[in-house]
This record gives sequence, C-alpha cells and structure tokens, in this order.
Amino acid sequence: MNELELLRLIRDRARDLPAQVKVGPGDDCAVVAFGDVQTLLTVDQLVGGRHFDIQSATLGQVAHKALGRSVSDIAAMGGSPALSLVTGLFPPGFDDGDALLEALTERSRAWSCPMVGGDIAVGDGPLSLTATVIGEVRTARGPVLRSEAREGDGVYVTGRLGGSLASGRHLAFEPRVREGAWLSEALGDRLGAMIDLSDGLGLDGARVAEASGVRIVLEGSVIPLHEGVADWRGACSDGEDYELLFTAQGAAPRACDETGVSITQIGEVTGGSGCVLFDAQGAEIDIASMGWNHGAS
Amino acid sequence: MNELELLRLIRDRARDLPAQVKVGPGDDCAVVAFGDVQTLLTVDQLVGGRHFDIQSATLGQVAHKALGRSVSDIAAMGGSPALSLVTGLFPPGFDDGDALLEALTERSRAWSCPMVGGDIAVGDGPLSLTATVIGEVRTARGPVLRSEAREGDGVYVTGRLGGSLASGRHLAFEPRVREGAWLSEALGDRLGAMIDLSDGLGLDGARVAEASGVRIVLEGSVIPLHEGVADWRGACSDGEDYELLFTAQGAAPRACDETGVSITQIGEVTGGSGCVLFDAQGAEIDIASMGWNHGAS
Repeated sequence: MNELELLRLIRDRARDLPAQVKVGPGDDCAVVAFGDVQTLLTVDQLVGGRHFDIQSATLGQVAHKALGRSVSDIAAMGGSPALSLVTGLFPPGFDDGDALLEALTERSRAWSCPMVGGDIAVGDGPLSLTATVIGEVRTARGPVLRSEAREGDGVYVTGRLGGSLASGRHLAFEPRVREGAWLSEALGDRLGAMIDLSDGLGLDGARVAEASGVRIVLEGSVIPLHEGVADWRGACSDGEDYELLFTAQGAAPRACDETGVSITQIGEVTGGSGCVLFDAQGAEIDIASMGWNHGAS
Repeated sequence: MNELELLRLIRDRARDLPAQVKVGPGDDCAVVAFGDVQTLLTVDQLVGGRHFDIQSATLGQVAHKALGRSVSDIAAMGGSPALSLVTGLFPPGFDDGDALLEALTERSRAWSCPMVGGDIAVGDGPLSLTATVIGEVRTARGPVLRSEAREGDGVYVTGRLGGSLASGRHLAFEPRVREGAWLSEALGDRLGAMIDLSDGLGLDGARVAEASGVRIVLEGSVIPLHEGVADWRGACSDGEDYELLFTAQGAAPRACDETGVSITQIGEVTGGSGCVLFDAQGAEIDIASMGWNHGAS
C-alpha cells in the first residue's frame, strides 16, 4: 500500500465529524470554525533521504521546505498563516539542533506563523521534521476548496512549472500565500477550485477533477515552464512546484497585482471526469497518474 | 545537547508572539484565542525504539500512546480535546498502515478529538507517529498554567504513580481529561498550577516550581504508589504516569466526583525554588533532576 492509498484511508474514515469541522481530511487543509473564526489546519512531514538529500541540503533549506510545504497548503485555501507547531526527530549525535531551530524560527516569522509549540526527540533513522500550520480565512469568499471547479471555468496556474528537483527549487520555493489571498479577493465568487501543485500537474489536476466531479482538459503547449524544462512532461514529473492551480469563471488577471507573479491559463473545465492534456500534435494524453512517486508498499 | 535543552531553545526563541497567543511554548499546551474561543495546541512524537518497544507493542498500544500523550497535555490545562491531526512515518515495507489508522481513528473518537487531517510518509528508520491535538477551554476558570502555584498551596496528584514501564501502563494509561476539567470547575480560583506527569515527579515538579517561582516540597511516604512499586523513587524514575500534578489553596476533594479517581496531597508549595522530597528518615533530597532520560547529545 503506497502513501496515496494510506492517505485515502484517513479520508475514508472521517465520518460523523463535529459541526465545527466544515471540511475534513481530503483537501489541502481542514476547515474548522472556532466561534466566528474559520481556521485552516494542515500538517506535513519532511523526511531525510525522501524529501531532501541528507548530504547536500543545508539546514536553512530543510527548515524552508519543512514549513513551506504546510504554508503552501494554507495558501491553496486562500488563507493566511497564523501559527505553527514543529517537531524534529533527530538522529543520534545530531549536532545542529540549535541552528535548525534558529532557521525554523526565522522562516516561521517570515511566513507569519510563529512557532507556539514543538517537540524534539532523538531516534534512529534520518532527520525528519513535522510542521503543523494553522491559518485563518480572512477573505469574504471564504476557504477555497478543491471541490469548487465548475464546467466552463478556465484552468490557471501561477508562476512557472517543472524542474524543481534538478534546479533545487523544491528547497527554496516561495509559497503563494499573497497570491492565493489576492485571487480570493480579486475574483470573489468567480474563483472556483484551488490546489497547490505538490505532486505534479497530472496528479493534482486529477484531484481537483475528482473532488469537483468535472474533467480537467489542459493544453500542453501553453503551460509556462521554467528555463531548461523541455516540455509539459517536466510539469508533470517532479511535482514540488508549489505553484497554485485554480479554476475561474471568465478571464483571470495576467499577474498578481501585489507581487507581479504571472498567471497563465492552461486549460478548461468540462463535463466528465479525469485530467487529460492535448500535446502539440493534438494527441489526448491521460496525465491523471503522472507525478511524484509516493512509494510502493 | 539533549532533548530538554533543545526544547528550551524553542521556548527561548518565542518572542514577539501575536496578541492572540496567550501562552507560547513552555507549558503543556499553547493557549491561542480565535475570536472568543480559547484553544489549546499541543504536539508530541512517539518514536519506535525510544517510546515503545517495536517488537512487543501492539498497533493498538502504539496508537493509544501516540494520541494519549497529547490528549494528556490538554487535560493538564483543564481543557477538552476537540480535534487531532496525526502523521505516520512508516518504515519501508510496513504492512500495518490500515490497522494502525483504524486504531488511531478509534482512539481519536474515544477521546473526542476526531482526526481532521494527517500525513503518511515512508522512510528509513523505525515507525514513528506525531499527534497534534487541539483542545478548547470550556471552564470559567480558564486554562490552568504551570506558572500559577502559590506559596501555601497544597500539592496533589491524581491516581497512583510508578512502575509505568515494567507494568506496560505507559502504553495503556487513561489521560485525565475529565479529572482536569472537573478540578477546574470544582476548585475554581483555588486551583493553582497543573501539569501532567510525563517525565516523573522530580522533573515535572521542578517545572512547576520554576514556572511559578516557588519551591515544591514533597513528603515521600505519602506518595500514592502502584502495587509493586517499592517507594517514592519509583514515582521519580520512569515517568510516563500521565497523572495530574496540581496545587490548590485549602483542601482538595479526596477523589474526582465524576470518575472516582483518587486525589492525594503529597506536599506543599513554599517560598524559594526547586523541588525537594523528605524521605521516611526525614532527609531532604533534591529530586529536580530525577526522571526520564531525554537522551544525551
């Protein structure tokens, strides 16, 4: 059983949740109401040897990616990070605890989610970190779910895709927090579904399609790629771009007014199911299973 | 640098927290206000080979202890568990993911903190779990902090102490959620400080003393012990009792009305600092460093 199948087991077991839980497992974040405040809850692990190279990644990069993955989940809901709790599992003899905590502290402040708790343990195995980030929804539109894509919406991405591993960008991405909240304000109800691209355009596009009960149809030749990425396959392979994929009714702006990050239409939402892409030769390719390998059983 | 020193580094770095953070790192939970609701946030790790024996512990016991430790932190603040997020780091080839998630689901419901999110990763090293639990403070008294012991308070514990590892109780304890909330209601402002006994009476007593700026003075002969535990040293050695240690003005009830769990006075709060114990011969013993070994550097 691989990681994706196990995650599905968490989701499938989520029954009879209390009324304060507006969205349970299965989206980028859970949405939970505390009184009048809608909070967003998410947790991610970063495991040495699996999500970063133990020999070459700096402590700053490890801290950046560990917190950044969860902050990106908050961004994908149109939310604002507020607080974090971080745990570290350190291998025996690990000497860099102080420097790693300093880097985590710096990142948590830079992303407006200061650490309010944590835990350190020493155990066998590689360095690994777990980051719980709590966000708030401060927009009139409310949290942006994966399930809100509608037939006729355009499909858009922020920034450029591909080559995250080879370039090292997977250790240095900027979570699209400002863009996510800005899109929510600027587009309001025209904004449909949103997700952050952690596992690649194919897998993540298919998640939106499945959650929304629609078909995502992409045009390979218009996908914005980082320099050195040959074609759309690069946007499906590594994952770890941490750009936002969203759908919207009508035209979306060409860039985020606040940050200048580009916004590109790459396809549309139709009736049906699945996530497909038309290549330059006009061939339809099923990309729903293309993406980062979550490990075999 | 051992785990306790590293935890101190997290606490020492917590400066300039936003106003909604009423209590930052350093207590059993952080206290954070969302609107009018006071929430409690805590996270703990459970690492195979460190916190449980990989060969002998059942999946049910692993799930119980992983969630129970964080639920106990909520209890120590007088709070009520509300939600949880759990991550699992599974060794390659781990076949029991489904059964472990089932056990976690069962425990999370039994303790009224259903899982609203999680993450699974496969990586080298032993099975380890991380449980973030979010609670709410529903009592008029508000959250019960470590820093609220006052000179003249009595020092009390729930239940019995000692022998948690040899007996297997560390895998099967019942977090004192009902007792913590009941004490908060029954004693109101007479209730002083509270903490859950995770690392042993010495280390945890010293934490209350330090946070409150007082001295904790215990009487060894009156400490309630589990069957088979020879003397007070057993209450200081293993830790992992997950009973509540609290201070109160005036007399406390002899048992929790709701659950029948016993309550025993074991000492008093005086001026000064540190945590000491008088043994049966009247010798004063400094127990502030006696407790579970958090690993050397």
